[in-house]
Amino acid sequence: MSKFWSPVVRDLIPYVPGEQPRERLIKLNTNENPYPPAPGVGQVLRDYPTDHLRLYPDPESRALREALAREHGIEADQVFVGNGSDEVLALAFQAFFCQERPLSMPAITYSFYPVYCRLYGIDYRTLALGDEWQVPLEAFDAQSGGIVFANPNAPTGHGHDRDAIAALLERVTECVVLIDEAYVDFGGESAIPLIQQYPNLLVTGTFSKSRSLAGLRLGYAIGSRELVEGLERVKNSFNSYPIDSLANAAGVAALEDREHFEACREKVITTRERTRRQLERLGFEVLPSQTNFMLTRHPEHDAAQLFAGLRERGILVRHFNTEALRDFLRISIGTEDEMISLIEALEALCR
Amino acid sequence: MSKFWSPVVRDLIPYVPGEQPRERLIKLNTNENPYPPAPGVGQVLRDYPTDHLRLYPDPESRALREALAREHGIEADQVFVGNGSDEVLALAFQAFFCQERPLSMPAITYSFYPVYCRLYGIDYRTLALGDEWQVPLEAFDAQSGGIVFANPNAPTGHGHDRDAIAALLERVTECVVLIDEAYVDFGGESAIPLIQQYPNLLVTGTFSKSRSLAGLRLGYAIGSRELVEGLERVKNSFNSYPIDSLANAAGVAALEDREHFEACREKVITTRERTRRQLERLGFEVLPSQTNFMLTRHPEHDAAQLFAGLRERGILVRHFNTEALRDFLRISIGTEDEMISLIEALEALCR
Repeated sequence: MSKFWSPVVRDLIPYVPGEQPRERLIKLNTNENPYPPAPGVGQVLRDYPTDHLRLYPDPESRALREALAREHGIEADQVFVGNGSDEVLALAFQAFFCQERPLSMPAITYSFYPVYCRLYGIDYRTLALGDEWQVPLEAFDAQSGGIVFANPNAPTGHGHDRDAIAALLERVTECVVLIDEAYVDFGGESAIPLIQQYPNLLVTGTFSKSRSLAGLRLGYAIGSRELVEGLERVKNSFNSYPIDSLANAAGVAALEDREHFEACREKVITTRERTRRQLERLGFEVLPSQTNFMLTRHPEHDAAQLFAGLRERGILVRHFNTEALRDFLRISIGTEDEMISLIEALEALCR
Repeated sequence: MSKFWSPVVRDLIPYVPGEQPRERLIKLNTNENPYPPAPGVGQVLRDYPTDHLRLYPDPESRALREALAREHGIEADQVFVGNGSDEVLALAFQAFFCQERPLSMPAITYSFYPVYCRLYGIDYRTLALGDEWQVPLEAFDAQSGGIVFANPNAPTGHGHDRDAIAALLERVTECVVLIDEAYVDFGGESAIPLIQQYPNLLVTGTFSKSRSLAGLRLGYAIGSRELVEGLERVKNSFNSYPIDSLANAAGVAALEDREHFEACREKVITTRERTRRQLERLGFEVLPSQTNFMLTRHPEHDAAQLFAGLRERGILVRHFNTEALRDFLRISIGTEDEMISLIEALEALCR
């Protein structure tokens, strides 16, 4: 605590990201993609005219926004880009959720959302998940100051289809509904087509998961022009150039390689389903997942002990020490070989 | 205006960065370095293991902070890094200047500062510059909620020496004094050594100017551990990983090449002083500059017309259409050849 801090800083409880270990581990803790980015990304780096880095990047990231617009069949002015979807989410909270009425979110979801609320002084209410760990769409109050959830949700892996989202948007028309689709490419259904019909829908996405570019910090939001303009106004009052020239160029290259993208996500989905069956054979309960991770628990084995045992064997997974999640492990989907090592280690630990 | 925006968004007046033209112009408008970054930066890009980009970057940017600490003879926990010094400044305004008492700044300084104030609802007071366009250090109120200025100042180019800054810090002890040293390497004197003595001093710097890396978005702040911790708390409530893996690595490479750094800044300083003499021969008044730009006006020629005439001749400089600055042009220092073209164009326009 320092007398020089602004009062709000004293009450912050920062988000704690998963560990980035320095030693060589099988890393199944932060939902990274086990496969490399599209080969075109490497080509961008090798061919990049270094001299160009002396110039500021395009503050509007036009090329990247146009590539995202082509990808999703929309216009570039319906696309906002930022330094990872974390930055995009932060700017969206400030742009849309600093309202008199409280924000609504599920009780279990991406744990950065309450952190943003503290940073911006946003009051919020949480809703308990349903019996099947689903986000209870029908329980969201249409009078909220805003609604935010991940779909598919994290760390549960459950996703709602587009019709369910449309039904929510038919009912909630007076506040922004922010849907975080970080994991949608691993089996979820995107709500992006609904932006044409619902001006209060904002969908965020990331290059960190299905595009294998967590290291490059690229995220985006897609929505009506008025929502994108709101984000631009906040961004241009915060940092004119959040996306560097290399990330802009590499993002375009990643989007252009549909074949690589499809092949990687198919491999992740196949590995996820195979690993699920193997975990179930070991007695684990595994929540259905439309993501590149699984939430799982064992009726007889303590999750914290399994976490520690895996770590000893060189395998890093995620354990959340909260009341609702303390029985679970969240396991990112790695390569086939990595998941075989995981299963072998769990076999030994559950013996 | 949209009903979905937070109230604060309606009153924002975003910062307007200098133009990044698509056509080929002699670009003397955004204070970029005319020389390329250190050759080691290109090497980092060519050798980078692309597969590594699938992983999140180090959220603490340890290697880069350690390199900055070595450069300045301090410890890594006295260094904060961010996505350009604009982001670092924004986080610092939120971390330190959201106080009951108003912030103080010069009336003429980096125009992003008032933008941050509107974004965070910070009340501020401005002080007129002195007779020689200097920041009036003696006029800052020790009872302020905070003090911020650029040193050397922008767009005037005037800088105070370290003793003058120390005298200010002897007097102002109860609020953060934020000194933006974006341009210090072109002839200013850094206040960084004073951080050991004054826990309320925060100095920001950037890789965008003297390190020729505007395109890579790297900035930093140096100060006491309690100030760095305040910044970390806000940053970790906003975006865990603002600096991508390539920027982290390239920043280290840039810092390691002292010879390149010295050679480039010497060339810029030499060109600046030669150009000053040439401008004075054409009848321009040129403010003394410790930066990589000059603020200049001509007693007989309208600055807006000169701006337009230069633009027609393929040369882009900066003209600020404010009451205090409308008679001036701000001209970044380019290569020798670029400045010869500038002088030739001005000769023709002033004939």
